Amino acid sequence: MSGAPRRYALIGAGAVGGLYGGRLAAAGHELHVLARSDAEHLRRHGLRIESPGADDFIVHPVVHTDPATIPDVDVVLIGLKTTANGDLPALLGPVARPGVTVVVLQNGLGVEEVAAAAAPGATVLGAMCFVCASRPGPGHVRLLDYGTITLAEHTPGGEPAGVTDAMSAVAGDLERSGTDVMRMPDLVGARWRKLVWNIPFNGLTVVLDAGTDELMADPDARALVVTLMAEVEAAAEATGHALPDGFVDEMLAYTEAMVAYSPSMKSDYDAGRPLELEAIYANPIRAACAAGCDVPRIEALHRQLAFLDRRPRRPPP
Amino acid sequence: MSGAPRRYALIGAGAVGGLYGGRLAAAGHELHVLARSDAEHLRRHGLRIESPGADDFIVHPVVHTDPATIPDVDVVLIGLKTTANGDLPALLGPVARPGVTVVVLQNGLGVEEVAAAAAPGATVLGAMCFVCASRPGPGHVRLLDYGTITLAEHTPGGEPAGVTDAMSAVAGDLERSGTDVMRMPDLVGARWRKLVWNIPFNGLTVVLDAGTDELMADPDARALVVTLMAEVEAAAEATGHALPDGFVDEMLAYTEAMVAYSPSMKSDYDAGRPLELEAIYANPIRAACAAGCDVPRIEALHRQLAFLDRRPRRPPP
Repeated sequence: MSGAPRRYALIGAGAVGGLYGGRLAAAGHELHVLARSDAEHLRRHGLRIESPGADDFIVHPVVHTDPATIPDVDVVLIGLKTTANGDLPALLGPVARPGVTVVVLQNGLGVEEVAAAAAPGATVLGAMCFVCASRPGPGHVRLLDYGTITLAEHTPGGEPAGVTDAMSAVAGDLERSGTDVMRMPDLVGARWRKLVWNIPFNGLTVVLDAGTDELMADPDARALVVTLMAEVEAAAEATGHALPDGFVDEMLAYTEAMVAYSPSMKSDYDAGRPLELEAIYANPIRAACAAGCDVPRIEALHRQLAFLDRRPRRPPP
Repeated sequence: MSGAPRRYALIGAGAVGGLYGGRLAAAGHELHVLARSDAEHLRRHGLRIESPGADDFIVHPVVHTDPATIPDVDVVLIGLKTTANGDLPALLGPVARPGVTVVVLQNGLGVEEVAAAAAPGATVLGAMCFVCASRPGPGHVRLLDYGTITLAEHTPGGEPAGVTDAMSAVAGDLERSGTDVMRMPDLVGARWRKLVWNIPFNGLTVVLDAGTDELMADPDARALVVTLMAEVEAAAEATGHALPDGFVDEMLAYTEAMVAYSPSMKSDYDAGRPLELEAIYANPIRAACAAGCDVPRIEALHRQLAFLDRRPRRPPP
């Protein structure tokens, strides 16, 4: 590696956090993982990363179960689900000393606000991960497809921060660890771009009990995906973060080229975990609404998901 | 009975056709049933009608398997699913002699047009059945709740026909057989009223695998029902058939007072039968569209259902 090694903390070593944290550790950065149920497994066996067309690798981060034992770090990666964000102040507070960079690897809109409130002296970056990954077991991450990250810096008012030093430093570390990074001046715009994919596919795979490939192959499901994407596009524009021309078509082509995939919300649903509805649906709907933009299909899908999330899960057939 | 006995034919003795045909037979009308798989059972055991708070009764209609053997009748009741309407010309043609009254006991919009084309010399009535009924087995109908019929006469241009003699004659027979009947001058308006219930509940019970009671009890599902009903209301108004004030609230109260119920589309879905999407969704969406009225939530629900209808059914959990 050519950048100086830095010290990283990772809060939440799920598929996404584990993948990028693991790569950074393999590239020579010191990695401190705050874990719960996986802690003992991680201490004994390390963190194993499987990637298509590449050798597996195992890294041995320092494992913590109490955030107070984590030493001063340069960067904190947040790999928690947004449904666990109620715990974020208690977990991030002790680690987020002034001057630290916090990287929010979460889905949805308004998620940096939660991290920023929990880490007042920190620089907060949003990381949109265009990745298909799963966690087959404790301390085990499987990359399935893609893996690019879009990085952008949070500002309290939501105005574009530009390409900042903190962003460049993290982007450089990620790139040298094998991850492609796109630097974006406008975090909120970048969040809306990610939602173009997440809003249709997270929800429809749950409601219709289907993979992304089945949805793309069916004329009606595909048409519904397209109209949902068009509503996200309209909302992004109404809130002052218009997507680049052709972005929806790009996302469709990206999904067509993708492996058959169960998005995180589908995995959460099938595993009986709560769904990330606030970040991926409620916050974007509120933002669209406040900008006077109607998003009836997104709203209908959100209500269907809220019903399913509230009801005791039925066993899959 | 005080009206003169008449001769009825019933094409399709499912839950709805069996209930009303059975009552007419019990009231003294001669009933000819065109049956397929149920024919042998109906010949041996008759048609059994179970109703809450009343004794069961059994009637013995004349059973046919070929429409050509049915004698001249005064009235033909169409109890087929709309998904079988491709067979209607062959089944109805031989029975629908000039002067006959054809009563379409089907759901959806545009269904009388199919019957009218198959029976050129006939008077065609639409019957909207506000009824919860099931068919536990061959020749066996179980009334669960309600049972009112709204009758209205079809005109080729869709303009209101008023309360006609043919309508009054059938309404009188139905009333004397124990069925409450509302006479409506405007068939298309009456069809839209029925859709206020069918569009949200038929679709959502399938997509969310839920009973009407579960949907009404959940704040998000109920809100989605209300917004879907509002789209039907707007479409009805745009097509020149505005609903009476307070009709949506009436339908909500009706559903709240109803037994927990699986609408016909949910029963069809669970039994692996095709869904009545043309009549209940595609035709109303086309009519709304032609009148310049956007119905995005109905359209989204229709696309979800079209996907589920096309995919091989998964066994229920």
